[in-house]
Amino acid sequence: MGKLDYFFSPKSVAVIGVSRNPKKVGHVIFRNFSEGKFKGKLYPVNPKVDEILGSKCYPSISKVPGRVDLAVISIPAEFVPGTLEECGKKKIPAVIIISGGFKEIGRNDLEDAVVRILKKYKIRVIGPNCIGIYDPHSDVDTFFLPRYKLERPGDGSIAFISQSGALGSVILDWMAMKNYKISKFISYGNASDVDEADLIEYLANDKRTKVICAYFEGVKQGRKFYEIVSKVANKKPVIALKGGKTAEGNKAVSSHTGSMAGVSEIYSAAFEQSGVIEADNLEEIFDFARVLSTQPVPNGNRVQIITDGGGFGVLAADWIINNGLKLAKMKKESVDQMRKVLPSHVVLKNPIDLTGDADVERYRVAMDAAMKDDNVDMIAVITLFQIPTLTAEITDVISSFVEQGKKPVVVIAAGGRFTEVLKKSMEDFGVPTFSYPEKAAKALGALYDYSLAISGKT
Amino acid sequence: MGKLDYFFSPKSVAVIGVSRNPKKVGHVIFRNFSEGKFKGKLYPVNPKVDEILGSKCYPSISKVPGRVDLAVISIPAEFVPGTLEECGKKKIPAVIIISGGFKEIGRNDLEDAVVRILKKYKIRVIGPNCIGIYDPHSDVDTFFLPRYKLERPGDGSIAFISQSGALGSVILDWMAMKNYKISKFISYGNASDVDEADLIEYLANDKRTKVICAYFEGVKQGRKFYEIVSKVANKKPVIALKGGKTAEGNKAVSSHTGSMAGVSEIYSAAFEQSGVIEADNLEEIFDFARVLSTQPVPNGNRVQIITDGGGFGVLAADWIINNGLKLAKMKKESVDQMRKVLPSHVVLKNPIDLTGDADVERYRVAMDAAMKDDNVDMIAVITLFQIPTLTAEITDVISSFVEQGKKPVVVIAAGGRFTEVLKKSMEDFGVPTFSYPEKAAKALGALYDYSLAISGKT
Repeated sequence: MGKLDYFFSPKSVAVIGVSRNPKKVGHVIFRNFSEGKFKGKLYPVNPKVDEILGSKCYPSISKVPGRVDLAVISIPAEFVPGTLEECGKKKIPAVIIISGGFKEIGRNDLEDAVVRILKKYKIRVIGPNCIGIYDPHSDVDTFFLPRYKLERPGDGSIAFISQSGALGSVILDWMAMKNYKISKFISYGNASDVDEADLIEYLANDKRTKVICAYFEGVKQGRKFYEIVSKVANKKPVIALKGGKTAEGNKAVSSHTGSMAGVSEIYSAAFEQSGVIEADNLEEIFDFARVLSTQPVPNGNRVQIITDGGGFGVLAADWIINNGLKLAKMKKESVDQMRKVLPSHVVLKNPIDLTGDADVERYRVAMDAAMKDDNVDMIAVITLFQIPTLTAEITDVISSFVEQGKKPVVVIAAGGRFTEVLKKSMEDFGVPTFSYPEKAAKALGALYDYSLAISGKT
Repeated sequence: MGKLDYFFSPKSVAVIGVSRNPKKVGHVIFRNFSEGKFKGKLYPVNPKVDEILGSKCYPSISKVPGRVDLAVISIPAEFVPGTLEECGKKKIPAVIIISGGFKEIGRNDLEDAVVRILKKYKIRVIGPNCIGIYDPHSDVDTFFLPRYKLERPGDGSIAFISQSGALGSVILDWMAMKNYKISKFISYGNASDVDEADLIEYLANDKRTKVICAYFEGVKQGRKFYEIVSKVANKKPVIALKGGKTAEGNKAVSSHTGSMAGVSEIYSAAFEQSGVIEADNLEEIFDFARVLSTQPVPNGNRVQIITDGGGFGVLAADWIINNGLKLAKMKKESVDQMRKVLPSHVVLKNPIDLTGDADVERYRVAMDAAMKDDNVDMIAVITLFQIPTLTAEITDVISSFVEQGKKPVVVIAAGGRFTEVLKKSMEDFGVPTFSYPEKAAKALGALYDYSLAISGKT
């Protein structure tokens, strides 16, 4: 077990600084561990309290009996170095320091002390000034926000690391609502020890993670970062969003984390050279990630559109072209085959327009033909669920084609509550769904770029 | 009363082609009228039926007693000319032809017949091959999609016209879910009589409409369109999205509506010269429309950001710059004033970072200062509702500042269900809300562009 494994799969966790006050950080963290699915041993630590939520409370970490794999520290900054020293003496391999009040407010002395101690005892530390980890598989959850107020996404294959805790956590809340799933989330704050490069290297070898996503404002060690992502990005997709790209945003960064954001162009060039896929905005990170984590790599850039609404087909065609992809031209045999069974008013071009009286069978016929046709590399399916003839069974049909894993498929469906419910059910089966053509097309473009990167064609 | 008024505020409506089969178009249209808030007289017409949903059914439109302001026709295309002739004889001023089966499938003969008759009797016609009108104020609703499957948005001030019925209707479904409100929606299909230019001219004089939005793939009469929008766009915002901008999308248009989409650059140039705000995608139309319909015109392009999350503040700063706006620099007096009452760890720059322990009072102080400071033209407020110290009262505080109508305000709040509920409550008070900074910034950019257009500075 590598040392970073202790952060995500600890057999025993101590929460240092629990409180009986349900509004306090230490209380919420302990409650999340004790009420969740976490299966390991749990040790609350607080010298002033005997018992919390039915568990015996220990006066200090050194008084905890037996081995502790992970300590989560949430106490005032000035007491952190002393407590970390105790953790070292107890040979705890991994420590998350939630507490703020270090470098980010000018207390470099306290942060230096932390670094000295973690080196002395070879402890791996995440933080300080972070919200830590959420791992839906082990249910390690150090967020100090109650689950009723900030929902957690389900167990999936997208990893997300974020320098900013607030930004990362509200994105998880949004992902949970959308039914997007994650493998691991890490907010690493001041990165006094474990930094973005360490995490990306770790996630590259994590079997539960298929795509690595990152939001950061600055990088601690440029060369190390570049070398690691260059190695990782060609075997597992790495998607990054850099905050503070403009001079003005850059100034805001220095107020936010006290770090220098660096020159935007340097980052973009480094991303491109190392094979990192750069996202333009937060939503796009996960648009890309959902497609890259669920869909096979395409053989080319020819997309077949299948729609029941002409207008959406037109917009999809526009955006496919705008993103460097092409409209597929299906073989005559495929078209003839479809023509035999589909009504004459169905338009068998690209887009294939199944028209406003389309039913599930028409979609089945068209998707089957596109799947089998060698002139088609990717499929964009537009389903306006509101038309009277289309039943909810369409989600099963699409999901079963996607399950074959032969060609990338994305689904575009705009609408209200009814539509959202059907889209969520498809997300469960690994079907990436979008409300609008431009986002789906951009994500297919990212998938195609990745296919070029891993085949060495870029 | 102008003739187009009869479409939106008829005192009596005949639905020609009602059916007792609840899946049929004519049935759904009649049901929507009879079960909605529509206050006028209603006449179902069908020679084969005596009674429908408790109403006496008339064998033909000529047998309907008394005056009819609006006829909605949903019968097979071949019978439409004869029925339209009867409508003419009965002096019905406005007719919506829902039926398809005309020019779009090559039956130009039938469409020509329709045009001859409407000219002969001076009837104004919307359609054929359309889904017609939804007006939440009068509850004229000719959508043939039941309300449980496709929700209708509430009564507001955004008008939306769409050549494509399917596209328009699913967008309304999405708007209803988001709690965005509209004044009128019109799907005009083949535009055999009333076209996009007529509708824009009409909506320019409609008091309930503050912003006009349009999706179209081609324009029927280029010069007429250009002349009308040039007049309208400088007194009321007109936002347009053109489908089929690429050569490939253009080909898809000819399969979709049989019309030529024209050269994309010509449209973009015409939009710019006539003062039309061009949107890049469907969502953006309504991002722009919500801001332009609710917020005052700014005096300049200096934006003050107020946030409780540093990362979102950084991204907002980036996007404000990317959209041709500037970060405001507040006066020393304003900063001193805030400094007196706000804690020392609050960052009083731009962004103002109220930090992760912000409460409602901090927002009140910062918004009040930004509202009063002459160096600030617009305000972007970021509220991550998930932080423990921020109560739901924040929505009232923000709404009351927006109600003053002194400076444009947008709210950015990302998250899950809890966040969405609070955002919807603000939309009710005319506060435009966004999930992500890039969209809010782009919409403020559109508002600023409009301010330049009406002041003749562009």
